[in-house]
Amino acid sequence: MSIKRTVFFISDRTAITAETFGHSLLIQFDDVDFQKVTLPFIDTMWKAQDALEHINDAREHTGARPIIFSTIVNSQIRKLILSSEAAVVDLFDAFIGPLEEELRVQPSLGGSSHHPSAGDELDIRINAVNYALTNDDGITTKNYDKADVILVGVSRTGKTPTCLYLGLQYGIYAANYPLTEEDLLIEYRKIPGVLQPYRDKLYQKEISLAEFLYVSKNIPYLNITTMSIEEIAATVMHKSKLQRRIF
Amino acid sequence: MSIKRTVFFISDRTAITAETFGHSLLIQFDDVDFQKVTLPFIDTMWKAQDALEHINDAREHTGARPIIFSTIVNSQIRKLILSSEAAVVDLFDAFIGPLEEELRVQPSLGGSSHHPSAGDELDIRINAVNYALTNDDGITTKNYDKADVILVGVSRTGKTPTCLYLGLQYGIYAANYPLTEEDLLIEYRKIPGVLQPYRDKLYQKEISLAEFLYVSKNIPYLNITTMSIEEIAATVMHKSKLQRRIF
Repeated sequence: MSIKRTVFFISDRTAITAETFGHSLLIQFDDVDFQKVTLPFIDTMWKAQDALEHINDAREHTGARPIIFSTIVNSQIRKLILSSEAAVVDLFDAFIGPLEEELRVQPSLGGSSHHPSAGDELDIRINAVNYALTNDDGITTKNYDKADVILVGVSRTGKTPTCLYLGLQYGIYAANYPLTEEDLLIEYRKIPGVLQPYRDKLYQKEISLAEFLYVSKNIPYLNITTMSIEEIAATVMHKSKLQRRIF
Repeated sequence: MSIKRTVFFISDRTAITAETFGHSLLIQFDDVDFQKVTLPFIDTMWKAQDALEHINDAREHTGARPIIFSTIVNSQIRKLILSSEAAVVDLFDAFIGPLEEELRVQPSLGGSSHHPSAGDELDIRINAVNYALTNDDGITTKNYDKADVILVGVSRTGKTPTCLYLGLQYGIYAANYPLTEEDLLIEYRKIPGVLQPYRDKLYQKEISLAEFLYVSKNIPYLNITTMSIEEIAATVMHKSKLQRRIF
Protein backbone atom coordinates (compact mmCIF):
# COMPACT_ATOMS: atom_id res chain seq x y z
CA MET A 1 0.00 0.00 0.00
CA SER A 2 1.43 3.37 -0.96
CA ILE A 3 1.56 6.29 1.45
CA LYS A 4 -0.38 9.39 0.41
CA ARG A 5 0.51 13.00 1.16
CA THR A 6 -0.78 16.33 -0.07
CA VAL A 7 1.97 18.76 -1.07
CA PHE A 8 1.50 22.51 -1.46
CA PHE A 9 3.86 24.75 -3.42
CA ILE A 10 3.22 28.26 -2.11
CA SER A 11 4.74 31.55 -3.18
CA ASP A 12 4.03 35.25 -3.39
CA ARG A 13 5.25 35.02 -6.98
CA THR A 14 4.91 32.26 -9.60
CA ALA A 15 5.81 29.31 -7.32
CA ILE A 16 7.86 27.85 -10.18
CA THR A 17 10.99 27.71 -7.99
CA ALA A 18 9.05 26.06 -5.15
CA GLU A 19 7.60 23.55 -7.63
CA THR A 20 10.85 22.59 -9.36
CA PHE A 21 12.92 22.52 -6.18
CA GLY A 22 10.22 20.69 -4.20
CA HIS A 23 9.89 18.17 -7.00
CA SER A 24 13.65 17.48 -6.97
CA LEU A 25 13.41 16.65 -3.25
CA LEU A 26 10.19 14.64 -3.52
CA ILE A 27 11.49 12.30 -6.25
CA GLN A 28 13.94 11.03 -3.61
CA PHE A 29 10.91 9.46 -1.88
CA ASP A 30 9.44 7.31 -4.61
CA ASP A 31 7.34 5.14 -2.27
CA VAL A 32 5.10 8.05 -1.40
CA ASP A 33 2.13 9.05 -3.55
CA PHE A 34 2.19 12.86 -3.53
CA GLN A 35 -0.91 14.85 -4.45
CA LYS A 36 0.47 18.22 -5.62
CA VAL A 37 -1.25 21.59 -5.36
CA THR A 38 0.30 24.89 -6.47
CA LEU A 39 -0.80 28.16 -4.86
CA PRO A 40 0.99 31.04 -6.60
CA PHE A 41 0.67 34.81 -5.97
CA ILE A 42 -0.19 34.51 -2.26
CA ASP A 43 0.70 38.18 -1.75
CA THR A 44 -2.04 39.45 0.57
CA MET A 45 -3.20 38.38 4.03
CA TRP A 46 -6.59 37.68 2.57
CA LYS A 47 -5.21 35.21 0.04
CA ALA A 48 -2.99 33.71 2.74
CA GLN A 49 -6.04 33.10 4.94
CA ASP A 50 -7.67 31.31 2.02
CA ALA A 51 -4.55 29.20 1.47
CA LEU A 52 -4.45 28.35 5.17
CA GLU A 53 -7.99 26.99 5.06
CA HIS A 54 -7.13 25.01 1.95
CA ILE A 55 -4.14 23.45 3.76
CA ASN A 56 -6.03 22.66 6.94
CA ASP A 57 -8.85 21.13 4.91
CA ALA A 58 -6.32 18.79 3.28
CA ARG A 59 -5.06 17.84 6.75
CA GLU A 60 -8.55 16.94 7.86
CA HIS A 61 -9.48 15.22 4.61
CA THR A 62 -6.42 12.95 4.33
CA GLY A 63 -5.62 12.45 8.01
CA ALA A 64 -1.93 13.20 7.35
CA ARG A 65 0.00 16.45 7.71
CA PRO A 66 0.38 18.14 4.32
CA ILE A 67 3.86 19.23 3.25
CA ILE A 68 4.43 22.82 2.20
CA PHE A 69 7.24 24.19 0.05
CA SER A 70 7.20 27.95 0.52
CA THR A 71 9.22 30.78 -1.05
CA ILE A 72 7.09 33.55 0.49
CA VAL A 73 9.14 36.68 1.28
CA ASN A 74 6.67 38.77 3.30
CA SER A 75 7.11 37.92 6.98
CA GLN A 76 3.48 38.47 8.02
CA ILE A 77 2.18 36.20 5.29
CA ARG A 78 4.87 33.65 6.08
CA LYS A 79 3.91 33.55 9.74
CA LEU A 80 0.29 32.90 8.87
CA ILE A 81 1.20 30.00 6.54
CA LEU A 82 3.58 28.61 9.19
CA SER A 83 0.65 28.48 11.65
CA SER A 84 -1.01 25.79 9.52
CA GLU A 85 -1.17 22.12 10.50
CA ALA A 86 1.52 21.17 8.00
CA ALA A 87 5.20 20.35 7.75
CA VAL A 88 6.71 23.48 6.20
CA VAL A 89 9.85 23.61 4.09
CA ASP A 90 10.42 27.36 4.22
CA LEU A 91 13.07 28.12 1.61
CA PHE A 92 13.20 31.82 2.31
CA ASP A 93 13.31 31.72 6.08
CA ALA A 94 15.98 29.03 6.21
CA PHE A 95 18.51 31.12 4.33
CA ILE A 96 17.78 34.84 4.57
CA GLY A 97 19.10 35.04 8.17
CA PRO A 98 22.42 33.30 7.50
CA LEU A 99 22.90 35.39 4.34
CA GLU A 100 22.23 38.60 6.27
CA GLU A 101 24.86 37.59 8.79
CA GLU A 102 27.36 36.63 6.10
CA LEU A 103 26.91 39.85 4.10
CA ARG A 104 26.40 42.16 7.09
CA VAL A 105 23.74 43.99 5.11
CA GLN A 106 20.04 44.27 5.97
CA PRO A 107 17.79 42.60 3.41
CA SER A 108 15.29 44.97 1.82
CA LEU A 109 12.51 42.35 2.16
CA GLY A 110 10.69 43.89 -0.75
CA GLY A 111 8.24 41.53 -2.40
CA SER A 112 10.07 40.28 -5.43
CA SER A 113 6.76 40.56 -7.30
CA HIS A 114 7.65 44.24 -7.67
CA HIS A 115 10.80 43.40 -9.48
CA PRO A 116 11.78 46.71 -11.09
CA SER A 117 12.80 45.33 -14.46
CA ALA A 118 9.81 43.11 -15.28
CA GLY A 119 9.18 45.15 -18.43
CA ASP A 120 12.81 44.89 -19.53
CA GLU A 121 12.78 41.17 -18.89
CA LEU A 122 9.64 40.82 -20.98
CA ASP A 123 11.31 42.69 -23.84
CA ILE A 124 14.49 40.61 -23.61
CA ARG A 125 12.42 37.42 -23.67
CA ILE A 126 10.15 38.51 -26.51
CA ASN A 127 13.15 39.58 -28.60
CA ALA A 128 15.05 36.37 -27.88
CA VAL A 129 12.01 34.21 -28.71
CA ASN A 130 11.38 36.16 -31.91
CA TYR A 131 15.03 35.67 -32.80
CA ALA A 132 14.70 31.90 -32.27
CA LEU A 133 11.53 31.74 -34.36
CA THR A 134 12.90 33.88 -37.18
CA ASN A 135 16.12 31.87 -37.33
CA ASP A 136 14.68 28.41 -36.82
CA ASP A 137 15.65 25.42 -38.94
CA GLY A 138 17.89 27.39 -41.30
CA ILE A 139 14.95 29.45 -42.66
CA THR A 140 17.42 32.29 -43.04
CA THR A 141 21.08 32.68 -42.22
CA LYS A 142 21.32 36.44 -42.63
CA ASN A 143 20.98 37.21 -38.88
CA TYR A 144 23.72 34.83 -37.72
CA ASP A 145 25.96 37.78 -36.81
CA LYS A 146 23.52 38.53 -33.96
CA ALA A 147 23.44 34.94 -32.68
CA ASP A 148 24.88 34.05 -29.28
CA VAL A 149 24.96 30.43 -30.39
CA ILE A 150 23.93 28.40 -33.44
CA LEU A 151 22.75 24.84 -32.83
CA VAL A 152 23.51 22.46 -35.66
CA GLY A 153 22.15 18.93 -35.86
CA VAL A 154 20.01 16.37 -37.62
CA SER A 155 16.25 16.43 -37.18
CA ARG A 156 14.43 15.23 -34.00
CA THR A 157 17.21 16.34 -31.66
CA GLY A 158 15.10 19.06 -30.02
CA LYS A 159 16.90 21.99 -31.68
CA THR A 160 13.78 24.17 -31.86
CA PRO A 161 12.59 23.74 -28.24
CA THR A 162 16.16 24.14 -27.01
CA CYS A 163 16.54 27.46 -28.87
CA LEU A 164 13.20 28.63 -27.48
CA TYR A 165 14.18 27.52 -23.98
CA LEU A 166 17.50 29.38 -24.27
CA GLY A 167 15.52 32.49 -25.22
CA LEU A 168 12.86 32.20 -22.52
CA GLN A 169 14.97 30.98 -19.61
CA TYR A 170 18.27 32.77 -20.30
CA GLY A 171 17.48 35.58 -22.78
CA ILE A 172 20.00 34.07 -25.20
CA TYR A 173 19.78 34.55 -28.99
CA ALA A 174 19.93 31.01 -30.39
CA ALA A 175 19.57 30.04 -34.05
CA ASN A 176 19.48 26.52 -35.38
CA TYR A 177 20.52 24.94 -38.64
CA PRO A 178 19.51 21.44 -39.76
CA LEU A 179 22.09 18.96 -40.98
CA THR A 180 20.53 17.16 -43.90
CA GLU A 181 21.38 13.70 -45.09
CA GLU A 182 23.15 15.40 -47.95
CA ASP A 183 25.35 17.37 -45.57
CA LEU A 184 26.21 14.16 -43.76
CA LEU A 185 26.67 11.69 -46.58
CA ILE A 186 27.98 13.69 -49.51
CA GLU A 187 29.85 16.50 -47.80
CA TYR A 188 30.39 15.02 -44.37
CA ARG A 189 33.85 16.44 -44.06
CA LYS A 190 32.72 20.02 -44.63
CA ILE A 191 30.83 22.53 -42.52
CA PRO A 192 27.95 23.83 -44.71
CA GLY A 193 29.21 26.93 -46.52
CA VAL A 194 26.72 29.40 -45.02
CA LEU A 195 27.95 28.45 -41.52
CA GLN A 196 31.65 28.95 -42.23
CA PRO A 197 31.85 32.60 -41.06
CA TYR A 198 30.22 31.74 -37.71
CA ARG A 199 32.40 28.82 -36.66
CA ASP A 200 32.93 30.09 -33.12
CA LYS A 201 29.18 30.25 -32.48
CA LEU A 202 28.41 26.70 -33.57
CA TYR A 203 27.16 24.12 -31.14
CA GLN A 204 26.32 20.79 -32.61
CA LYS A 205 23.81 18.32 -31.32
CA GLU A 206 23.99 14.85 -32.59
CA ILE A 207 23.36 11.19 -31.98
CA SER A 208 25.87 9.25 -34.03
CA LEU A 209 26.62 9.77 -37.71
CA ALA A 210 27.52 13.44 -37.57
CA GLU A 211 30.07 13.06 -34.78
CA PHE A 212 32.85 12.55 -37.27
CA LEU A 213 32.15 15.97 -38.75
CA TYR A 214 32.19 17.62 -35.33
CA VAL A 215 35.32 15.89 -34.13
CA SER A 216 37.23 16.50 -37.33
CA LYS A 217 36.29 20.21 -37.33
CA ASN A 218 36.79 20.66 -33.58
CA ILE A 219 33.23 21.84 -32.96
CA PRO A 220 31.76 21.07 -29.51
CA TYR A 221 29.00 18.47 -29.66
CA LEU A 222 26.56 16.71 -27.40
CA ASN A 223 24.89 13.31 -27.38
CA ILE A 224 21.37 14.28 -26.30
CA THR A 225 19.79 10.80 -26.23
CA THR A 226 19.01 10.81 -22.49
CA MET A 227 18.90 14.57 -21.89
CA SER A 228 16.00 16.89 -21.17
CA ILE A 229 15.63 20.29 -22.84
CA GLU A 230 16.87 22.02 -19.64
CA GLU A 231 19.91 19.80 -19.55
CA ILE A 232 20.73 20.45 -23.21
CA ALA A 233 20.23 24.20 -22.75
CA ALA A 234 22.25 24.37 -19.52
CA THR A 235 25.06 22.40 -21.14
CA VAL A 236 25.16 24.71 -24.16
CA MET A 237 25.23 27.74 -21.83
CA HIS A 238 28.03 26.27 -19.76
CA LYS A 239 30.25 24.91 -22.52
CA SER A 240 29.83 27.97 -24.75
CA LYS A 241 30.54 30.19 -21.70
CA LEU A 242 27.39 32.23 -22.28
CA GLN A 243 26.00 34.52 -19.56
CA ARG A 244 22.33 34.68 -18.56
CA ARG A 245 20.62 37.94 -19.58
CA ILE A 246 17.69 37.33 -17.25
CA PHE A 247 16.85 35.38 -14.07
CA MET B 1 31.54 52.01 -2.33
CA SER B 2 29.68 48.85 -3.16
CA ILE B 3 30.52 45.51 -1.56
CA LYS B 4 31.62 42.76 -3.94
CA ARG B 5 30.98 39.06 -3.57
CA THR B 6 31.42 36.08 -5.86
CA VAL B 7 28.41 33.78 -5.94
CA PHE B 8 28.48 30.19 -7.23
CA PHE B 9 25.38 28.27 -8.29
CA ILE B 10 26.39 24.61 -8.15
CA SER B 11 24.39 21.52 -9.02
CA ASP B 12 24.76 17.97 -10.24
CA ARG B 13 22.06 18.81 -12.76
CA THR B 14 21.28 22.06 -14.66
CA ALA B 15 21.67 24.47 -11.69
CA ILE B 16 18.59 26.34 -12.95
CA THR B 17 16.82 25.92 -9.58
CA ALA B 18 19.91 27.06 -7.68
CA GLU B 19 20.18 30.08 -10.02
CA THR B 20 16.56 31.19 -9.84
CA PHE B 21 16.17 30.54 -6.11
CA GLY B 22 19.55 32.08 -5.30
CA HIS B 23 18.68 35.12 -7.38
CA SER B 24 15.39 35.62 -5.51
CA LEU B 25 17.34 35.70 -2.23
CA LEU B 26 20.17 37.89 -3.55
CA ILE B 27 17.88 40.65 -4.86
CA GLN B 28 16.97 41.25 -1.20
CA PHE B 29 20.52 42.60 -0.78
CA ASP B 30 20.68 45.31 -3.41
CA ASP B 31 23.71 47.09 -1.92
CA VAL B 32 25.96 44.18 -2.74
CA ASP B 33 27.58 43.75 -6.15
CA PHE B 34 27.35 40.02 -6.85
CA GLN B 35 29.60 38.39 -9.43
CA LYS B 36 27.69 35.26 -10.48
CA VAL B 37 29.20 31.99 -11.70
CA THR B 38 27.15 28.91 -12.59
CA LEU B 39 28.71 25.43 -12.34
CA PRO B 40 26.19 22.86 -13.60
CA PHE B 41 26.60 19.07 -13.93
CA ILE B 42 29.07 18.66 -11.04
CA ASP B 43 28.33 14.95 -10.88
CA THR B 44 31.76 13.38 -10.38
CA MET B 45 34.41 13.81 -7.69
CA TRP B 46 36.80 14.94 -10.39
CA LYS B 47 34.53 17.79 -11.48
CA ALA B 48 33.86 18.63 -7.81
CA GLN B 49 37.61 18.93 -7.18
CA ASP B 50 37.80 21.34 -10.12
CA ALA B 51 34.88 23.37 -8.77
CA LEU B 52 36.51 23.47 -5.33
CA GLU B 53 39.67 24.99 -6.79
CA HIS B 54 37.59 27.51 -8.72
CA ILE B 55 35.82 28.53 -5.48
CA ASN B 56 38.99 28.77 -3.41
CA ASP B 57 40.64 30.82 -6.18
CA ALA B 58 37.77 33.31 -5.98
CA ARG B 59 38.25 33.50 -2.21
CA GLU B 60 41.92 34.32 -2.67
CA HIS B 61 41.35 36.70 -5.57
CA THR B 62 38.58 38.83 -3.98
CA GLY B 63 39.58 38.56 -0.32
CA ALA B 64 35.97 37.77 0.66
CA ARG B 65 34.27 34.41 1.21
CA PRO B 66 32.32 33.39 -1.87
CA ILE B 67 28.68 32.37 -1.44
CA ILE B 68 27.52 29.02 -2.79
CA PHE B 69 23.98 27.97 -3.63
CA SER B 70 24.05 24.19 -3.97
CA THR B 71 21.42 21.64 -4.98
CA ILE B 72 23.89 18.73 -5.15
CA VAL B 73 22.28 15.41 -4.14
CA ASN B 74 25.29 13.09 -3.92
CA SER B 75 26.62 13.20 -0.34
CA GLN B 76 30.30 12.62 -1.19
CA ILE B 77 30.32 15.44 -3.73
CA ARG B 78 28.40 17.66 -1.33
CA LYS B 79 30.93 17.10 1.43
CA LEU B 80 33.78 18.07 -0.85
CA ILE B 81 32.06 21.31 -1.89
CA LEU B 82 31.21 22.05 1.76
CA SER B 83 34.92 21.84 2.59
CA SER B 84 35.57 24.98 0.51
CA GLU B 85 36.32 28.38 2.01
CA ALA B 86 32.83 29.66 1.25
CA ALA B 87 29.47 30.33 2.86
CA VAL B 88 27.28 27.49 1.60
CA VAL B 89 23.52 27.63 1.17
CA ASP B 90 22.89 23.90 0.83
CA LEU B 91 19.33 23.54 -0.39
CA PHE B 92 19.36 19.78 -0.44
CA ASP B 93 20.98 19.14 2.91
CA ALA B 94 18.78 21.62 4.76
CA PHE B 95 15.58 19.82 3.87
CA ILE B 96 16.17 16.17 3.02
CA GLY B 97 16.62 15.21 6.69
CA PRO B 98 13.44 16.89 7.98
CA LEU B 99 11.48 15.43 5.04
CA GLU B 100 12.81 11.94 5.78
CA GLU B 101 11.68 12.33 9.38
CA GLU B 102 8.27 13.66 8.36
CA LEU B 103 7.60 10.93 5.79
CA ARG B 104 9.31 8.12 7.71
CA VAL B 105 10.68 6.83 4.44
CA GLN B 106 14.33 6.56 3.43
CA PRO B 107 15.24 8.80 0.51
CA SER B 108 16.63 6.90 -2.47
CA LEU B 109 19.37 9.52 -2.94
CA GLY B 110 19.61 8.66 -6.59
CA GLY B 111 21.18 11.36 -8.69
CA SER B 112 18.23 13.12 -10.25
CA SER B 113 20.28 13.37 -13.44
CA HIS B 114 19.15 9.79 -14.05
CA HIS B 115 15.53 10.80 -13.99
CA PRO B 116 13.81 7.82 -15.62
CA SER B 117 11.42 9.80 -17.80
CA ALA B 118 13.80 12.28 -19.44
CA GLY B 119 12.82 10.93 -22.85
CA ASP B 120 9.10 11.23 -22.11
CA GLU B 121 9.60 14.77 -20.82
CA LEU B 122 11.44 15.66 -24.01
CA ASP B 123 8.57 14.29 -26.10
CA ILE B 124 5.94 16.13 -24.04
CA ARG B 125 7.90 19.37 -24.42
CA ILE B 126 8.59 18.96 -28.14
CA ASN B 127 4.91 18.16 -28.80
CA ALA B 128 3.68 21.08 -26.68
CA VAL B 129 6.12 23.50 -28.38
CA ASN B 130 5.13 22.22 -31.82
CA TYR B 131 1.50 22.73 -30.84
CA ALA B 132 2.21 26.32 -29.79
CA LEU B 133 4.10 27.03 -33.03
CA THR B 134 1.48 25.42 -35.28
CA ASN B 135 -1.35 27.26 -33.54
CA ASP B 136 0.34 30.63 -33.09
CA ASP B 137 -1.32 33.92 -33.91
CA GLY B 138 -4.51 32.36 -35.31
CA ILE B 139 -2.61 30.73 -38.23
CA THR B 140 -5.12 27.92 -37.99
CA THR B 141 -8.02 27.20 -35.66
CA LYS B 142 -8.62 23.60 -36.63
CA ASN B 143 -6.64 22.12 -33.68
CA TYR B 144 -8.40 24.12 -30.97
CA ASP B 145 -10.14 20.96 -29.72
CA LYS B 146 -6.71 19.76 -28.52
CA ALA B 147 -5.87 23.04 -26.74
CA ASP B 148 -5.57 23.19 -22.96
CA VAL B 149 -5.95 26.96 -23.18
CA ILE B 150 -6.32 29.57 -25.93
CA LEU B 151 -4.80 33.00 -25.26
CA VAL B 152 -6.66 35.85 -26.92
CA GLY B 153 -5.36 39.40 -27.03
CA VAL B 154 -4.13 42.36 -29.05
CA SER B 155 -0.58 42.37 -30.40
CA ARG B 156 2.53 43.01 -28.24
CA THR B 157 1.07 41.34 -25.16
CA GLY B 158 3.54 38.45 -25.21
CA LYS B 159 1.04 35.82 -26.39
CA THR B 160 3.63 33.86 -28.38
CA PRO B 161 6.35 33.64 -25.70
CA THR B 162 3.71 32.85 -23.06
CA CYS B 163 2.36 29.94 -25.15
CA LEU B 164 5.90 28.67 -25.70
CA TYR B 165 6.69 29.04 -22.00
CA LEU B 166 3.52 27.11 -21.08
CA GLY B 167 4.69 24.35 -23.41
CA LEU B 168 8.30 24.24 -22.23
CA GLN B 169 7.81 24.77 -18.50
CA TYR B 170 4.48 23.01 -17.94
CA GLY B 171 3.91 20.76 -20.99
CA ILE B 172 0.64 22.59 -21.65
CA TYR B 173 -0.92 22.88 -25.13
CA ALA B 174 -1.52 26.61 -25.61
CA ALA B 175 -2.82 28.27 -28.76
CA ASN B 176 -3.16 31.98 -29.28
CA TYR B 177 -5.49 34.13 -31.34
CA PRO B 178 -4.91 37.81 -32.12
CA LEU B 179 -7.63 40.37 -31.51
CA THR B 180 -7.47 42.76 -34.45
CA GLU B 181 -8.56 46.37 -34.44
CA GLU B 182 -11.54 45.17 -36.45
CA ASP B 183 -12.52 42.70 -33.73
CA LEU B 184 -12.28 45.47 -31.17
CA LEU B 185 -13.85 48.43 -32.95
CA ILE B 186 -16.46 46.99 -35.27
CA GLU B 187 -17.49 43.83 -33.45
CA TYR B 188 -16.33 44.59 -29.95
CA ARG B 189 -19.34 42.96 -28.36
CA LYS B 190 -18.76 39.62 -30.05
CA ILE B 191 -16.26 36.85 -29.53
CA PRO B 192 -14.76 36.12 -32.98
CA GLY B 193 -16.86 33.38 -34.61
CA VAL B 194 -14.12 30.75 -34.88
CA LEU B 195 -13.55 30.97 -31.10
CA GLN B 196 -17.21 30.46 -30.11
CA PRO B 197 -17.04 26.64 -29.71
CA TYR B 198 -14.01 26.93 -27.38
CA ARG B 199 -15.31 29.49 -24.91
CA ASP B 200 -14.25 27.51 -21.85
CA LYS B 201 -10.64 27.38 -23.05
CA LEU B 202 -10.25 31.10 -23.66
CA TYR B 203 -7.91 33.20 -21.64
CA GLN B 204 -7.66 36.79 -22.68
CA LYS B 205 -4.69 39.04 -22.25
CA GLU B 206 -5.25 42.69 -22.60
CA ILE B 207 -4.17 46.18 -21.70
CA SER B 208 -7.24 48.39 -21.92
CA LEU B 209 -9.61 48.60 -24.88
CA ALA B 210 -10.55 44.93 -25.03
CA GLU B 211 -11.52 44.66 -21.37
CA PHE B 212 -15.11 45.55 -22.16
CA LEU B 213 -15.37 42.50 -24.41
CA TYR B 214 -13.95 40.21 -21.72
CA VAL B 215 -16.06 41.57 -18.91
CA SER B 216 -19.25 41.50 -20.94
CA LYS B 217 -18.62 37.93 -22.08
CA ASN B 218 -17.38 36.72 -18.68
CA ILE B 219 -14.01 35.57 -20.00
CA PRO B 220 -11.09 35.69 -17.53
CA TYR B 221 -8.58 38.39 -18.43
CA LEU B 222 -5.31 39.76 -17.25
CA ASN B 223 -3.63 43.17 -17.33
CA ILE B 224 -0.08 42.15 -18.18
CA THR B 225 1.56 45.60 -18.17
CA THR B 226 3.93 44.90 -15.28
CA MET B 227 4.11 41.13 -15.54
CA SER B 228 6.90 38.83 -16.68
CA ILE B 229 6.29 35.83 -18.94
CA GLU B 230 6.57 33.48 -15.93
CA GLU B 231 4.01 35.49 -14.04
CA ILE B 232 1.59 35.52 -16.97
CA ALA B 233 2.06 31.78 -17.53
CA ALA B 234 1.73 30.90 -13.82
CA THR B 235 -1.42 33.03 -13.57
CA VAL B 236 -3.00 31.34 -16.59
CA MET B 237 -2.15 27.91 -15.12
CA HIS B 238 -3.64 28.84 -11.76
CA LYS B 239 -6.80 30.60 -12.89
CA SER B 240 -7.59 28.06 -15.60
CA LYS B 241 -6.93 25.27 -13.05
CA LEU B 242 -4.49 23.52 -15.39
CA GLN B 243 -2.13 20.83 -14.09
CA ARG B 244 1.57 20.62 -14.94
CA ARG B 245 2.44 17.70 -17.21
CA ILE B 246 6.16 17.98 -16.41
CA PHE B 247 8.44 19.31 -13.67
